[in-house]
Parts: sequence; C-alpha cells; structure tokens
Amino acid sequence: MSHSKRNHTISRSRLSITVCCLAALATATPAMAAGPWQALPDVAPAPSDNPTTPAKVELGKMLYFDTRMSSSGNISCFSCHNVMEGGDDHRPTSIGVHGHVGGRNAPTVWNAAFLPSQFWDGRAATLEDQAKGPPANPIEMGMANLDAVIDRVKHIPGYKPYFEEAFGAGDVVTMDNAAKAIAAYERTLITPNSAYDRYAKGDLKALTDQEARGLATFAEVGCTSCHQGPNFSGPEMAPGTGFFMKFPTFPDSPYVAKNDFLSDTGRATVTGNDADKNVWRVPGLRNLVYTAPYFHNGQVHTIDEAVRIMASTQLNKELTDAQVADVVAFLETLTGPFPAQEMPRLPPTPGNLID
Amino acid sequence: MSHSKRNHTISRSRLSITVCCLAALATATPAMAAGPWQALPDVAPAPSDNPTTPAKVELGKMLYFDTRMSSSGNISCFSCHNVMEGGDDHRPTSIGVHGHVGGRNAPTVWNAAFLPSQFWDGRAATLEDQAKGPPANPIEMGMANLDAVIDRVKHIPGYKPYFEEAFGAGDVVTMDNAAKAIAAYERTLITPNSAYDRYAKGDLKALTDQEARGLATFAEVGCTSCHQGPNFSGPEMAPGTGFFMKFPTFPDSPYVAKNDFLSDTGRATVTGNDADKNVWRVPGLRNLVYTAPYFHNGQVHTIDEAVRIMASTQLNKELTDAQVADVVAFLETLTGPFPAQEMPRLPPTPGNLID
Repeated sequence: MSHSKRNHTISRSRLSITVCCLAALATATPAMAAGPWQALPDVAPAPSDNPTTPAKVELGKMLYFDTRMSSSGNISCFSCHNVMEGGDDHRPTSIGVHGHVGGRNAPTVWNAAFLPSQFWDGRAATLEDQAKGPPANPIEMGMANLDAVIDRVKHIPGYKPYFEEAFGAGDVVTMDNAAKAIAAYERTLITPNSAYDRYAKGDLKALTDQEARGLATFAEVGCTSCHQGPNFSGPEMAPGTGFFMKFPTFPDSPYVAKNDFLSDTGRATVTGNDADKNVWRVPGLRNLVYTAPYFHNGQVHTIDEAVRIMASTQLNKELTDAQVADVVAFLETLTGPFPAQEMPRLPPTPGNLID
Repeated sequence: MSHSKRNHTISRSRLSITVCCLAALATATPAMAAGPWQALPDVAPAPSDNPTTPAKVELGKMLYFDTRMSSSGNISCFSCHNVMEGGDDHRPTSIGVHGHVGGRNAPTVWNAAFLPSQFWDGRAATLEDQAKGPPANPIEMGMANLDAVIDRVKHIPGYKPYFEEAFGAGDVVTMDNAAKAIAAYERTLITPNSAYDRYAKGDLKALTDQEARGLATFAEVGCTSCHQGPNFSGPEMAPGTGFFMKFPTFPDSPYVAKNDFLSDTGRATVTGNDADKNVWRVPGLRNLVYTAPYFHNGQVHTIDEAVRIMASTQLNKELTDAQVADVVAFLETLTGPFPAQEMPRLPPTPGNLID
C-alpha cells in the first residue's frame, strides 16, 4: 500500500472515530509497521474486580447454557453463540425469542475475551457489560428488564449454592454476579496454540510455504492496519477503550451496494453522531473457518469473498487470485484448537417458571 | 384399590386399546401384583440392526446438537430435549422454528431408550423412527422433508468422515444412518443407579423410611397398574409394541376440565379410531424432579398435584396429604445420577447453508 493511500485511509477514518480510537490508531500504526507476529496468550486477561476462578467459571457455564433467562424459556447465550462450533450461529442474522430475527450477524464468543470492546458497535466496554445486553433485549431473550432476569434465576433454588461458592455468603444472587460469572466462563473460551500461534512463537515449520506467503501478503497489502495484535482485532488497549474503523472506507467499491453495507450505520446507532456513521469495532479473525457467513449483516458466504471485499472497501485494492488464495490459506491457520468442555448440569425448574 | 375398581379401570382401558396393548395388559397385571422392584439396567437395549458403538454415539451426539438440520438453522434435538437438565424444555409445550408453539409437552429423552414406543401417542416404534419425526415437522424443525434434512448434512463436508467411521465406506451419509446414530447416542442417555435403583438391588438403606413408605403406597393404591417395570413406563415389551392407557379413565374427575385433559385426543390423532380417543402411551416416571411442568399439555406445575390428579383420574381415589407426601418422596428417589458428557465439536458450515 502506498503511503498516500494509507494516510488517506487513516484520515477518512479519523473523521468518524471517537477520541479513544484516535488514541488507538496513534499507537497502532507503528506497531503494525514494525510489529512482530504475536501469539494469543494462554490465559485471557480479567478485570481486577472479577478475577477468573473455577467456581465462577462453573456457574457462568451453567448460566450461559440456561434458556430459562429468556421470556419464552428457549433462548440462551448458547443459542446464538454456539461453543460447540464457531461461537456464533451460522445464520446471516440471529433468531431470538418467538422467532424474532435480529439485525446483525452474531459475533463469535471465541476469544471475545481479547476484544477491547463488545458488540459490533462496541456499545459494551467489557464482557460483564455485554452479558447484560441480550437477556433484556426484546428480540433476543425478551425479558422485561434485568430484574426480571435475576428473578428467574432466584426462582431456581438450585442456583444459590453455586452463587455462594463463587461469590461468598449473603445476597449474592444478583445480576451483577451472574454477568461476572458468565464473563469468567467466556474468558475460558479462547483458542491459543493454532498453527499461526506456533509460528508466531518461533516454529517456522508450523505454516506451509503458502500460508507463510499469505501472512506476508496480509501485512504487505495493509490488512494489519486494523487486524493486528494477537487476536487480529487491533492493538492492545485498555479494556473498554474500543478500536473502531470506518467500514466501508471506500464506499464506491462495487461490493458495497451489492452487499448492502451502508444501511446499518454501526456505531452511530449508539452514539447518534454523524461522525460515527458506518464505523464498526474491528473484529478478530480467528476461527473464520467456523464463522460464515461474514460481516455485520452476514451477507458474505466465503472467506475468499470476504478478503476481496476488505481489500476493495478498506484498501482500495484488487488482489490477484493467487494473493487471495494465499491470504485465505493464512487465515485458516488461525483456527482452533478448541478446548474440550464438559456439559454443565443445570438445576431443576419449578413447573410454573415459564408460561 | 378394590378389585372391582381395578377391573373397572382395565375394562375401560380395553375399550380404547389397540391389540398390542391388550396383550401388554394381559402380561402386565400379574407382574404388577407380584413383581419385585426392578432396577434400571446399566446398558440400554439396542436393536439387532443398530448395535450401539462408540463411533455411532459420537456422530449421534453431534447430530443431536446440530441446529443446521432445521429450516431456520437454530433448532436441534437439544432445543426441546435438554440433556443438561431434565431432557425436556421446561415449557408447557415446545417452541420450534420461527417461534411456532407445539401442542404437547416435550417428553424427556432421558431413559427414552427403555420406552416400548415413542412420542406421547406412540406413533414411532423405535428411537430410530422417532428421530425422523421432528426434522420434517413444520412447527418443530421445519424442513420440507427428510431428503432436505440429509442434504443439509451432506453440505457440511466435515460430517462425512464421522459417518464413514460409524457405518463404513460408501454412500453412508443417509437419513437412515443419521437416525441410527442419534438413536445410538440416545441409548447412552440413561440414569441407572438412582437411590431407588440401589434399593431395588437390595440396599434397603438407600431409601428413607418416608421414601420406602411412599414406594409401598405407590403400589398399594394402584399406580403400578401402569407405572411398572424398571422405567415405570410399563412392563417389558417387544420394541414398538407400545403400552397405552386411557387418560383420564375417570373423566368426571374435577381435575379433567380444570386442566383441559380431554381436548387432545392422544392416540386417536394417529390411528383415527374412536376407540383410541384420549389413549396415551404410559410415560416413565424417572427424573420427574427435572421435568416440570407435567402431562401431555404441560398444565400441571408440581409433582404433588400430578400425584393427586393421577389418583383421581385413573384410580378414582383421593389420597391423603400424608400419602401424597410419601409418594412424592418416593418419586424423587428416581432422580439421576446423570452421566457426565463432553460437548461435541461440530464441523464448520459453508456460509450459504442457511438463508
């Protein structure tokens, strides 16, 4: 990518970026240029007020799979974030209670612990905040409010000992604690030690020639302007700071109208600022093999097409077929391994919990 | 129960029972009267053309959890038969694709391997047959037909090696084999070694005095007329034979109108025979603690109420509060233990699989 093009990209982005993002970009650009390839840590960072403990993880896993926190009693975190597969739901956009269809593609929960903000529009700073969103969203889990959610949990007596084990004695069956437990569980949903990670740690034979070529191409053409760091979701930042980018940066790309990329205005739907129109949190790229279809609206079916689109809409470039094949081969090295997980056992339900 | 009352019950049932059920009742009555208490076997029986193998169980578990066999891509066997809990969905009646609400309470999958027929109305002879029902049911998983279901599976390339491992080389990705694998997995979903089972095997201390009193009451008042055998779902019978009973046998019971027990005519909806009106497969009683709400329409919230209702509608008896408490205490000894299960890993999806 020429300097002029890179500067152009950044200046266009700046028009629509929040202050935190400006700071992010300022630190991001040199790291991208110089940076060594970074492996994913073996442990996800946790906030000081919610250290990850086995008791919280166990409770969080139970709550994550528990459909009883939805109004209809049949939707859980797992419904749209399938940890037996790609951490999403393989639909263009998700289905919540009573068949309601949402507006955006479910982001994967795998490695969400490494994202500096949550949701496509970054409206939650942390996993704890994120966990409080869907339960009271009318088209997701459909509860009237978070009080109603925790009321459901309180009406399942078998949960109390698990909350006490995780959070101590007293009035601990609270929504804050439920969210902390779910976040603690989600911090275990990480996939270090992919072929790429082994390469980044120095095992140069972990990638094939084509995969290594793809990695080099990925950097050379400019993908690492945004997709950098161990999760390829941007540079390391303070939790909640967010790392955002205009998408599409080049709205005249023929892919934009074809895939209806402009009608959802992204971060502007949260801030109400014109400057945030079509600005999005930069997503990670791990486990892309499992997370089709792609983009915020789930309109793109293959990684090939996603790579061509990003080159066009963000870098104003058209890649050759060989370049695309190489980059895709590299991206596929970001897959798994997924940790083995035992199914949780959920406590029984009073018969009048769900109407 | 007096002899006259018992005979009355049976003769009313005979009016509406199919030939196979008459045979069942003929063998059932003496077994009930004399029979020792039977523990659940440690291994579920399997048909000769589908022996249970680890490879089939592994594939079947994957398919059981795979929502991609539903039209909307978000409903699987697991959606209504939650093996992390009671094997049902804790709703009065189930929700399928696009928010469609079904007409009957989801029966538990736990120990379904021991039922002589499947579905509330017994319309499937085996677990293999049962597995082919919901995928093409328009309000359950909503696929156009079973060809469309297996076509989905064929479009997930990662499944083929698992089918080959389970069924050998060749054209093995078939609906019949998918159903066989799911049935094989379901034959592992059994809960032997409950407190009751330990008692039945001779450990008389496995039940408390109240629980043992409840067990005696359960037999004395006549519950074992139907709820006998190791699964309390009737006597051992040839697979597919079915064990059915009129419910309510005493339709003048005040509980009948209150709970709308007559409007769904049960087995008559399958056979079209007037004699089968309000005839139902006798369900098992294990893990009742986990399967509220109760009955075919999910209108009853507690085990207490369920016991009072059955005494009234089937035996024309009113139990004392102490009798009810004892029987409930006994029924609670039929709970678990549930086997630990590792989550399956599902193969990735092409991006255009679900619209």
